[in-house]
This record gives sequence, C-alpha cells and structure tokens, in this order.
Amino acid sequence: MYALAFGIGTRNRKDEWLEVYFPRPVFRPEQTLVNEIAEVTGYAGGNTDIDLDQATVAQLSDKISDAGQKSLLTMITGSTKPLVLTILETDSELQTTPETYLKLHLLSHRFVVPNEQNLEGIYPLLPNVAWTEQGAVDLDELEELQIAARLEGRVLEVQAVDKFPKMTNYVVPSGARIAHAGRVRLGAYVGEGTTVMHEGFINFNAGALGPNMVEGRISQGVTVGGGSDLGGSASTAGTLSGGGNIVITIGQDCLISANAGTGIPLGDRCTIEAGLYITPGTVVQILDEERNALRLVKARELAGMSDLLFIRNSQNGVVECRTNRKAIELNATLHRHN
Amino acid sequence: MYALAFGIGTRNRKDEWLEVYFPRPVFRPEQTLVNEIAEVTGYAGGNTDIDLDQATVAQLSDKISDAGQKSLLTMITGSTKPLVLTILETDSELQTTPETYLKLHLLSHRFVVPNEQNLEGIYPLLPNVAWTEQGAVDLDELEELQIAARLEGRVLEVQAVDKFPKMTNYVVPSGARIAHAGRVRLGAYVGEGTTVMHEGFINFNAGALGPNMVEGRISQGVTVGGGSDLGGSASTAGTLSGGGNIVITIGQDCLISANAGTGIPLGDRCTIEAGLYITPGTVVQILDEERNALRLVKARELAGMSDLLFIRNSQNGVVECRTNRKAIELNATLHRHN
Amino acid sequence: MYALAFGIGTRNRKDEWLEVYFPRPVFRPEQTLVNEIAEVTGYAGGNTDIDLDQATVAQLSDKISDAGQKSLLTMITGSTKPLVLTILETDSELQTTPETYLKLHLLSHRFVVPNEQNLEGIYPLLPNVAWTEQGAVDLDELEELQIAARLEGRVLEVQAVDKFPKMTNYVVPSGARIAHAGRVRLGAYVGEGTTVMHEGFINFNAGALGPNMVEGRISQGVTVGGGSDLGGSASTAGTLSGGGNIVITIGQDCLISANAGTGIPLGDRCTIEAGLYITPGTVVQILDEERNALRLVKARELAGMSDLLFIRNSQNGVVECRTNRKAIELNATLHRHN
Repeated sequence: MYALAFGIGTRNRKDEWLEVYFPRPVFRPEQTLVNEIAEVTGYAGGNTDIDLDQATVAQLSDKISDAGQKSLLTMITGSTKPLVLTILETDSELQTTPETYLKLHLLSHRFVVPNEQNLEGIYPLLPNVAWTEQGAVDLDELEELQIAARLEGRVLEVQAVDKFPKMTNYVVPSGARIAHAGRVRLGAYVGEGTTVMHEGFINFNAGALGPNMVEGRISQGVTVGGGSDLGGSASTAGTLSGGGNIVITIGQDCLISANAGTGIPLGDRCTIEAGLYITPGTVVQILDEERNALRLVKARELAGMSDLLFIRNSQNGVVECRTNRKAIELNATLHRHN
Repeated sequence: MYALAFGIGTRNRKDEWLEVYFPRPVFRPEQTLVNEIAEVTGYAGGNTDIDLDQATVAQLSDKISDAGQKSLLTMITGSTKPLVLTILETDSELQTTPETYLKLHLLSHRFVVPNEQNLEGIYPLLPNVAWTEQGAVDLDELEELQIAARLEGRVLEVQAVDKFPKMTNYVVPSGARIAHAGRVRLGAYVGEGTTVMHEGFINFNAGALGPNMVEGRISQGVTVGGGSDLGGSASTAGTLSGGGNIVITIGQDCLISANAGTGIPLGDRCTIEAGLYITPGTVVQILDEERNALRLVKARELAGMSDLLFIRNSQNGVVECRTNRKAIELNATLHRHN
Repeated sequence: MYALAFGIGTRNRKDEWLEVYFPRPVFRPEQTLVNEIAEVTGYAGGNTDIDLDQATVAQLSDKISDAGQKSLLTMITGSTKPLVLTILETDSELQTTPETYLKLHLLSHRFVVPNEQNLEGIYPLLPNVAWTEQGAVDLDELEELQIAARLEGRVLEVQAVDKFPKMTNYVVPSGARIAHAGRVRLGAYVGEGTTVMHEGFINFNAGALGPNMVEGRISQGVTVGGGSDLGGSASTAGTLSGGGNIVITIGQDCLISANAGTGIPLGDRCTIEAGLYITPGTVVQILDEERNALRLVKARELAGMSDLLFIRNSQNGVVECRTNRKAIELNATLHRHN
C-alpha cells in the first residue's frame, strides 16, 4: 500500500476537481487502517478516489482506530466543501487530480524525496486556476466573483493563475522558514532546518534536503544536499528550463554564490564564485593545488565531482576549476586523466 | 471612437479617484453602442468620465443592446462603490485617473500592444496608494484602518504601496499562467500561451506577445516576441532603468538564458548564454561560421539583428557573437561591412 | 529615555508573545510623557513591558497630554487583542519580544538608521510564526485553523513562515513606493523618495537612505546612500550571507547595475557594470584617466573609495577599475601607492 488520505477539495460548476487539501496524508499505511476503511467504503484495491458524504465520514470516524485520522474525520464532519478519500495502492502513473495532489503532499510532508515517485501525466491533471483567499476558482467563473467582491467594497485577491498552489496553504513542514511563501510550490521538499529567503524559489518535485539556506532557485527535479547554500538569484538549470536531460543534484556543503549558476550536477563541498554561471559546455581550465594548469575540460566532464572551486580569473577571463586543499583523491583522478 | 468602459472604482475621502476596475472594456466601440450611451447620458463627444448613479445604470441597462455590456450593467446596479463611464474618443494624452486605468486595461486585455497607445502624462494621474484586500486605500487613511483591523484580530494586508496594482485583480487574460501575480502590473501584455514563472516580471506597457516562458524581467516599454524565452533573473534594460533611449524589443524564438541580460534590441532566433550581460557599449568580437574572427563592434551596432549567439569565451574572456548556422544572409552583411 | 510605545499584539495559547504592532512609537520621549505614564502605571525606570488592561488604557488616555498618543489610546480602548506598553530607558541588549518589535519599528519609522541601535540577542526573541490575514499564528496552532478555514470554503493564506513580518503591515513610511511588500521586512529603513521595485529586497537593519531606486537586494546591515540605484537582481553581500565581517555601505549617487553585485563597501559616485560581481578577493586592474594600467589590487583595498567604475573588459576578461573623470584626487592617491 503506497498512500492514502482524506481530503477537502474544490470543484468547479462542472463538478471537476480544481484542487484537494489533504491535511494528514498517510504514507505506507498499516493494514489495519486499510481494512477499517475497506469495511466502511467497500474499497477493494487499486488506486481510487472515493467521494465521501457526511454519513460515511461519521462511520469512518467511528470505525478508524488511528488517533490522528479519527480526529481529522471528526473535524471535517461538518464540511460544506466536497470531501474525498484517495487511496493509492501503487505508485503508478497519475490518473486523477486528487491523486496528483496527494503525491505533491507526500513530497512536501517529506515522505518521499524529489524524483522518487512516479509523476508521469502530472500536467494535464492539474487545472490552471485562479488562487484566491476564497480558494481555487475556475477561470471561467472568476470574473463574476471579482465583480461581486468589488461591489461589496472588497477585492478578490488573485495571487496566482497557475497549475500549482503555494505549499504553505497545504503543508508547513517543521523546522523551516519560508520568507515568501508564494515562491515555494506544493510538491517542494523543504528539509528540516532550511530557510528559504525572499529570493529563494523551490519548484514541485525539487528540494533542499536540509539544513540549507536557499536564496536562489531550485528548479523542477533538482535537489540540494544538507549544508549547501544557494546565494541570492543563484540558478540551477532544470530539465524544464533549458537544462537539457541532465538532472541537477547539488551535494552537501556546497556554495553556489549570489548571481551564480550551474548547469551541471555537483558533488560535495563545491563552490561557484559570485556571478559565475557554469553550463555543461563551459570549457574549464583545471588547476592543481599549486595552481598549475592541468588540462581543459568541458564542465560536463566534472559533473558530480566533489571539492571543486569554480572561478573566473579576473586577470584573463579564464574559467578555472581549482580543487579544495583536501581534494587529494580528486586531483589524483584528474592527473590520471591528464 | 477609441474605447469606452463601465467601471467600479475607489475614491478617497477627498473624493479623488484612487483606481477604477473596468471589467469589460470596449475597444473601437460600434456606433450603435455609442449612440445608445449618448441617448441616456447626453455624451456629446470627446474624452470624458461620467459619474453614474444607480438610476442611470438602470436606464443604460435597459437601453443598451450589446449583451455583454447589458449584463455587466445589470450586475453592477446595486453597487455600494462609485461607478463611472469612461469614454475615449481619441487616443490622446492622458487627462484623468479613470482614463489612465482604462488604457492600462486595454493593454492587459490585449486590445493594443506595448508602445502602441499614448500614455503621456501617466505618472501624476496614478496616485500612490496602499493595495489591500479591501481595495486601494489612500495613504492618509491607512493607519486608522490598520489599527481598526488589528483591534478585531485581523490584519489589513498591505501588499504593495505603489501607483500600479497587480494585473490579475483587474484582468486575467486567457491562456496564460502567472505563478506570482504580484510581479505583473496592470498594463502588462501577457500573450496567449505565456507562462510567467515566479521570477518573471512584466511592467506596464511591456509584454510577452505569446507564447513565451518568462522567468526574467520585462521592463517598461519592452516587448518579447512569440517563442522567445527569458531565463530566470534575465534582464531587459528598460528606458526607465538605465537603458537610455533605446527601446528594447526581443524578436521571436530568442533565448535570454538565466542570469543573462540585454541592453540592445534583438532580432529573431538570438541567444545570450547564461550569466552574460550585453550592454550597448560592450565590445563584441564577431565570428563567422568557422569561428574566424571577423571584426570588433560595439553591441549597439548589432541592434535588432537576427540569428546571433552571444557568449563569453571561457578561455580568454572575449565576448563573442557567433551567428547561427542558418544565418548566411547576416554573415554576408557582416563580411560586407568588414 | 530611549523609546516607548503602546502596542497591540498577538499571544499564542501558551500566552507567549508572537508579535506586537506599535502604531505610533515615541523616540526619545519627553519627560512629561514619561511622568504621566509613570503616574498611572507605576513605571519606575528600566526597560520593561507592561501589560495593559482596559481600565489602565482608559486612565492613560485621560492622563496623557500628547495628542497623538491620547488619540491612539482612545482608539485601542476596546481592543479584543492583548495590549502592551513597552518602555526602553536605554538602548541595551534585547530582552523581550515586544522590545524587539519596538526597535524594528524605530528603524522603519526612520528614527534610527541601520547599525545605529543595539540588536544583540534578536533571533531567539523573534518566534518563527505563520503570517496570515488573521495575523501571526503559532505553528503548533496552525493546522487546526487551516482546516477550519477550508471547511468554511476559505483559505487561511499563509504568506510566510518566518521570524520577521512584512514592514507595510506595521509601518508605511512617507514618500516611498514598495511594489511588492513581501520583500521588505519590518526593520527595513526605506528613505523618503525611495522606490522599491518588485525585484527589490530590504532586510531588517538595512536600508536605502533615500531617494533611491531599489531593484536589487539590500542585505542585513547594508545601507545605500541617497541618489544611488540598485539595478534588477543586484546583490549586496551581507554579513549573514557569505560576505564575511565587512559591513557593506554604498555611498551616494552610485549605480550597481542589473545582475551585478558587490562584496566591498563603495564610496560615492561608483558604478559597477551590469552582470559584474566584485568580491573582496577579486584582483582588479586599476586604470588611470587615459586608461593606462597602473597596478593590480585586490578589490578589498578599494573599499569605501569614491568615483570608481568597475567593468570586465570584454576583449580580454580583465576586471578593470577606471576612475571617473572628476576623480583626480583619487587618482593621485592611487599613483602615490603605485
């Protein structure tokens, strides 16, 4: 059993799901819970969404022994909004909007890390909606609500028109600071001890494993290891944004300085100086620990290596890769390739 | 006849307009509509704002044959907020706040493209106000409302103190995604099929003609052609932000990569590599298709040309302009100038 | 007497302060006001927070002669939220959450400039909370409120999870524009005549002395002098973000262009070209007014000097420092050191 969760959602006037909030998703649920649910709902296996009426919610609340789920069911008994139970027996290709929202919740609740679960088929299952303080609004129903709010002297705040909501309206992970929540999408993984500053950004299925200082952009698919910092406006090239097929991973204790960027994965303890962008095709001069020029390589050949320091020499414009003092093993490797 | 629209607005305690929302502006209205309006309001030509009381709205609703305008009038009949009819016979210099708001709406509704209409006189006509969920608030009236909200256990959210509101509270154009609406001003042109990501920004009288991926900043006056992408934090120098008098236009199918920027207009199919900023005064080494050095030029001499690829050579720091393979004609031109 | 203020605050269920709003703080209060307060409250000196009940507020309102404070007390008499009087006899190390909020208010009200007051001990006194339109919410109490809002068809908008709130919900300084308020923290100093554009950012205890155009990031501790501009995504390295121990100050009439950055303090009339990042360790070629190479220096040796223009030569990658024409004195200094 992969996951299950009780959700409160929004449907448009055509009765299509716009979004679902799953306050307490259960990852790898115990068989007891599945059995209790099956007794009430008749669930017989597979991946499915079950619409819940108030009577069923009450029955589930009586039946279920898990304290957290029971109290959630008690809370939502009187909901005026549509309720749904989504059960994923397997982590297979996405089929419905509630399933998709559930998997995004699993990432932000840190049950799974980026690229670990199957998100095939995600885009068509996420409708593009207006995100307002009244929740998700179908774009065809928006103007009427906007005018109505105005006539009452209010504004219906349309904070985004997007397929993804902000994470913090769904999940606020422990031990994290997110200075501007509009820049962290549901489906982001924000690790314990991580601060995402105002200039930071984390896409869905991307994340900072924690602890991290994030003042730059973590693109879809990218993960940043513990102890690594992204400086202000630092860029990680995602597969959706020109980075090609290489999935970027930043290891531990790296520093991508302000206004710098990388189009290659980095190992541990790597540094890119402020303002320097390393693309896979950047020709890099490798220096040894005495700053002797060893050889020229394309940056993609350095993908995933540790203990690298990238700078652009300010006296001649050469992009150099120096190895940290400790990086004896790496240097040995590089000499061997020389 | 240039445009007309019925609006719901906000006035301060001195009865000055702070802003006006025109849900359904009419560009180049048909004479029938103008005549119907004139019969009810006595409109006799020129650019003018007509304050509407409820009786007049009801009369207009009866008289007007256009279905969209009639239904709008029906909706706003019971408004507690000031109503206005703004009519622009000509696209002349701005004279009033409602006129200014109407012209900004025309841009965001895609009736006109940036730099197409007369926006002379815009700044003094846009009061600097606090933008809150209760609408625009005069700065002299703000503290009282902030304290009152606090005493009730709420916060009056001051999302901006600015002359321009966010576009999406006024216009949500079709086929667009705007991941963080606070970064797209009313008066932006967001073309069909365009996604403005969290790091994207579009000023008023600026735009992405669509389809585009916008993760960078489109400054006032700048337009980006269809198929072009602005990478994260990519910069386009506007006339208001140090770019001088050159109005920047980016053609079709260009890529300004992450953390790159341009201070010169670009034709079609141009690329600027990640992290490279081209200013008008940047001395650029032109290379032909075999990478032979042709000549040095200041970047402003390349303004508006197509099929250019700008990189900074990572082995010697030279800013190079290579032509794309297909760019035979351009190369011929460049050789001729050699 | 350093400062005092009446505040409306938020406490969590454990009765701990989450935040305090001081609408009208008094800097260097007159003795009369202090005496009047002491008569009612028994204040006997020192730095202290005094919880106020409604009876005391009424008494204070009667007693106090200062018109602004009296009217504030009248307004808050009926508050449903906790009220507090914070008095700071001295600018000593921070001891309580209300004290901390008061000092942040003093900065944003422009009573003090960044680095002028004692902020020792600030971080533990600022709880990390969820910032919503219902005010600050303790993270342990958040889920319940989020679920409750959903059941009613609303969303509790969690705009940030942070120790610092946005400034504009507490202070809106005169003569300023702040295009996206989520990027200016309480404790920022935003000078008269300053515009903070959407890409601008100002941390607490940092500021633009005014008038300024801020489209870049002003890190904690950094001040920017009048007439200076920070271009889009321009970076100032703060002591908290990798800039080491050097406190960065930008003088007057400087231009840090788009996507540029500085890790050294600058004097007046300095320019850094678009896309160039100067770190303390950058080796810079000094040129005289005829562009003759004078000598190589590390940028940190130029810290605080005026009339410098930094560019990266696009023909050879050398980072050059040219002096502005007027900078004869500086050149003399540099020649002397030659």
